[in-house]
Amino acid sequence: MIQRDQIVSQFTKRLKKLPIFDWGKTYNGETLTSDLVAAIIVTIMLIPQSLAYALLAGLPPQMGLYASILPLVAYALFGSSRALAVGPVAVISLMTAAAVGKLALQGTEEYIFAAMALALISGLMLLVMGLLRLGFMANFLSHPVISGFITASGIIIATSQLKHILGIDAHGHNLAELLTSIVSHLNQINPFTLVIGIAATAFLFWVRKGLKPLLLSFGLKERMADILAKTGPVFAVAITTLVAFLFGLEGQGVALVGAVPQGLPGIQVPKLDLELVISLAGSAALISIIGFVESVSVAQTLAAKRRQRIDPNQELFGLGASNVASAFGGGYPVTGGFARSVVNFDAGARTPAAGAFTAVGIALATILLTPLLFFLPKATLAATIIVAVMTLVDFSILKRTWNYSKADFAAVASTMVVTLMWGVELGVSTGVLVSIAVHLYKTSRPHAAIVGLVEGTEHFRNIDRHDVQTTPTVLSLRVDESLYFANARFLEDRIYDLVADQPALKHVILMCPAVNEIDTSALESLEAINERLGDQDVKLHFSEIKGPVMDKLAKTDFLAHLTGQVFLSQYQAICTVAPQTCNQTKLATAVNGNKM
Amino acid sequence: MIQRDQIVSQFTKRLKKLPIFDWGKTYNGETLTSDLVAAIIVTIMLIPQSLAYALLAGLPPQMGLYASILPLVAYALFGSSRALAVGPVAVISLMTAAAVGKLALQGTEEYIFAAMALALISGLMLLVMGLLRLGFMANFLSHPVISGFITASGIIIATSQLKHILGIDAHGHNLAELLTSIVSHLNQINPFTLVIGIAATAFLFWVRKGLKPLLLSFGLKERMADILAKTGPVFAVAITTLVAFLFGLEGQGVALVGAVPQGLPGIQVPKLDLELVISLAGSAALISIIGFVESVSVAQTLAAKRRQRIDPNQELFGLGASNVASAFGGGYPVTGGFARSVVNFDAGARTPAAGAFTAVGIALATILLTPLLFFLPKATLAATIIVAVMTLVDFSILKRTWNYSKADFAAVASTMVVTLMWGVELGVSTGVLVSIAVHLYKTSRPHAAIVGLVEGTEHFRNIDRHDVQTTPTVLSLRVDESLYFANARFLEDRIYDLVADQPALKHVILMCPAVNEIDTSALESLEAINERLGDQDVKLHFSEIKGPVMDKLAKTDFLAHLTGQVFLSQYQAICTVAPQTCNQTKLATAVNGNKM
Repeated sequence: MIQRDQIVSQFTKRLKKLPIFDWGKTYNGETLTSDLVAAIIVTIMLIPQSLAYALLAGLPPQMGLYASILPLVAYALFGSSRALAVGPVAVISLMTAAAVGKLALQGTEEYIFAAMALALISGLMLLVMGLLRLGFMANFLSHPVISGFITASGIIIATSQLKHILGIDAHGHNLAELLTSIVSHLNQINPFTLVIGIAATAFLFWVRKGLKPLLLSFGLKERMADILAKTGPVFAVAITTLVAFLFGLEGQGVALVGAVPQGLPGIQVPKLDLELVISLAGSAALISIIGFVESVSVAQTLAAKRRQRIDPNQELFGLGASNVASAFGGGYPVTGGFARSVVNFDAGARTPAAGAFTAVGIALATILLTPLLFFLPKATLAATIIVAVMTLVDFSILKRTWNYSKADFAAVASTMVVTLMWGVELGVSTGVLVSIAVHLYKTSRPHAAIVGLVEGTEHFRNIDRHDVQTTPTVLSLRVDESLYFANARFLEDRIYDLVADQPALKHVILMCPAVNEIDTSALESLEAINERLGDQDVKLHFSEIKGPVMDKLAKTDFLAHLTGQVFLSQYQAICTVAPQTCNQTKLATAVNGNKM
Repeated sequence: MIQRDQIVSQFTKRLKKLPIFDWGKTYNGETLTSDLVAAIIVTIMLIPQSLAYALLAGLPPQMGLYASILPLVAYALFGSSRALAVGPVAVISLMTAAAVGKLALQGTEEYIFAAMALALISGLMLLVMGLLRLGFMANFLSHPVISGFITASGIIIATSQLKHILGIDAHGHNLAELLTSIVSHLNQINPFTLVIGIAATAFLFWVRKGLKPLLLSFGLKERMADILAKTGPVFAVAITTLVAFLFGLEGQGVALVGAVPQGLPGIQVPKLDLELVISLAGSAALISIIGFVESVSVAQTLAAKRRQRIDPNQELFGLGASNVASAFGGGYPVTGGFARSVVNFDAGARTPAAGAFTAVGIALATILLTPLLFFLPKATLAATIIVAVMTLVDFSILKRTWNYSKADFAAVASTMVVTLMWGVELGVSTGVLVSIAVHLYKTSRPHAAIVGLVEGTEHFRNIDRHDVQTTPTVLSLRVDESLYFANARFLEDRIYDLVADQPALKHVILMCPAVNEIDTSALESLEAINERLGDQDVKLHFSEIKGPVMDKLAKTDFLAHLTGQVFLSQYQAICTVAPQTCNQTKLATAVNGNKM
């Protein structure tokens, strides 16, 4: 019984830590009003977006709506951001299409089930990562890699939607496939679709730029105009649906959304078998990480504006629960979206309850409005997607990284090229691997500067960059990197080369303020250096070894075999092995030659 | 024509750089005698070893001899070590068996051709690595991982040879498979084989320990006794062959080497098709890297003893040429072996010509002695292998790394376990991946110490470790790691947490002597930190930024936006932002508050 009590108490404790108990305490009428207003606006914005992203994922439009109901409720319960709005987003929809497209054909039941299963697996992965506190793994996606990936994905997404604007059939998961397919079907262009598509795209681009000034000139307040301008897609949807209905465009070959099942899907448990899990696991992991990174960065941006903090590990639970909920509610993988979260924030959402209210709004729309969607042209949805993703496309990261760091440029460029040429999954994996490889390569050939004393100070600086004092009997080498397996041999080679050039040399001092670690390989290299220098009657000393590094060295017998000493500072080291250099400086500091 | 001349001149230049033109110049009668003596001793030692390792690789015994002829000539021409002896070695033979065993059955022609193709592919890879100067890649195999891998391989090799000692059939590429297979065949033990096997093993162990003292007591000189003791396996081969012949052990079910083709194989070009190359590429890459690392470390150990240097990139050419030669000469993958190189060195080899002379010796043996090998029991060869590899088995690395670094321990332990359980290829790959992952994990959560001024000095130390001065308006944080994508967010979190606790704070100084790089992700994080601290009226300063890092920052607009300053030293920084702290110290140094 004691054990059960313990479990119950543990569970209660854990439950009490849920964010809802934090913001729930201070919930009042004012917060409620703010949240409700935000919810209505976000609902209006989400309807066309959800339909469009489902289309992008190759799924029936209602799945986009389903993915915007339960996940919002789940996030409201478990998420830590007060403004984040979860649901289908462009990049994750594209990744879903890439993942599920490997297993089944679009339009089949298997395809739909696989998308739900993908949400479930991804959700469970996120929950497990949350339990194991693995949120730091997202750090291995560097900022430049994410920028490059998002830009390349945006291009692929926009290109993939061209077929709906042109009214043709075209398929492909990368740019080359898509373009080839589009070109080979150009003779099938449907002029009615094209007119609607171009008109909707032009209208939506205008809404982004021109609607707000127009509304302002009508006397609307800044914030209201801002929010109304974001609901532009709803007008495009309403107008083109009406046009298609009035002019009977279905008979002209214009692709319409068609019959959408009315009402809500029941709660369903996606069937997972081992084979399905194995074939989706890799894709689910990528979707989880990308979704998490995107969501956390949106949440942190918004939280910073109100001096709030985001707990990345709690976000793993929030997103994990959202994806599991999406799977159970007939949806597909979701994450926190940038545009909708900003609208939610700007519209005044104060707590995650706004998300729950939005869910109610979408549910009502799903029940009441779906018959009206029959005449909605797919070209309108495609236009919505194209205009949304073009804001993601930003090549400036290429220029910035080229100027700042060729290594980062290599990571961005390879991410972009591979994503465009071979698809999203290979693209983002390449980005991560290239960043890691480049980082390892850089640290494997560390910067190591010969240093000398800056006259009149106790400071030592690179002899190539500063006017400093040196002496032929002492070589002071500052190693600007942790010493570990990848650079251990490089350091050995460097020291032997330097020593070979200097016959008068009696002391080598390794200055280690930048050495944050010495691993076993590096320790063995240092032992070899110590021994080999000893054979040549050159003593090996160390200075400014960091505390944690010293603690570890003290556990070994390396210090006992060391031919030289370990000094607290490089200045003490120089004063001990070459007092004449030390005296020349104008500083008459009393030196406590304390050997550490 | 000019172009052709250029190519010819380039080629000539390259040719003149070959090591042979270095040692060839001073070659004389004395060097020749030394080299010849060493060659004879190494030849005697190599014959049983070559036969045994071919057996370990699952190949006909003569392939071991073939692999000890042309490769030695090729290495003499292209290698940079003066004492290295290349040829079949234990670990590479085991890896060959694992690689080729995936494609064909032992005893088939396909198996033999695949082994030759493996040598060719591996050789070409090494040559390409040499051209691209990729020798540094070997550094990613850390010392502990190599130790663990060699120990685990030694255990697998010894276990795999037990079947020959017992005279039973048993197969498997990992410890579990091997042991299960041996146990299930125990009822087939051949008593005659067992007697020969145990006797040979006991004799060879005794040779290692007891022969040298015995020879010394007979009045032989130290060095001669040492060398003779290394030729012990030849006696075991001769005696057991004679016993098998005299007592007709073939009729008793004792497995003998049997008919070995007499004479040398012609030069043959292994047929490579794309499918074969693809299926062997991964294994060939692993064999190349492991062989290169093993060979270079042997070569460097021996070179150090005579104050010579090894050029790792030249070694890639030497080993690459050796493997290509091995393939053309009917052999299989080779590398520099430890035991034979030490014997070569101790026996007085002065130049790579000793290797070429050894090749002639082995060629003569292949022509003249092969008929005598008919009665050689396989159990004797197995005993040779077991005794040789037991010297490789060394578990002390587990204890050493456990005491020194748990991260290194994790890499060693996982290498050993995976090698033993799932084979050599997965084992060594796991080791490399675990070391890299552990390194990234460590650097992703950098040590960052709050520092204060050591009274009476200009030095700053960790407040947790030293008695230092601080002031509530200034937070001095020393970041003990390069700032890059994996730890950028961690630093942000750390600083926000520290700042949140200190309402009196006006200045944050990041002390960067250990920051060797700031990549684009970290730069964006610093921009965010600068902005967010600015919102809270806290200025962000930097001190002791390294030259190369400063150069890169100067290219961006980061310094223009920085709320604080960049100081050459932390002491200057403190004196500027909190002069009262600075004055309290007994040092009355004139501070040049120069802003970098």
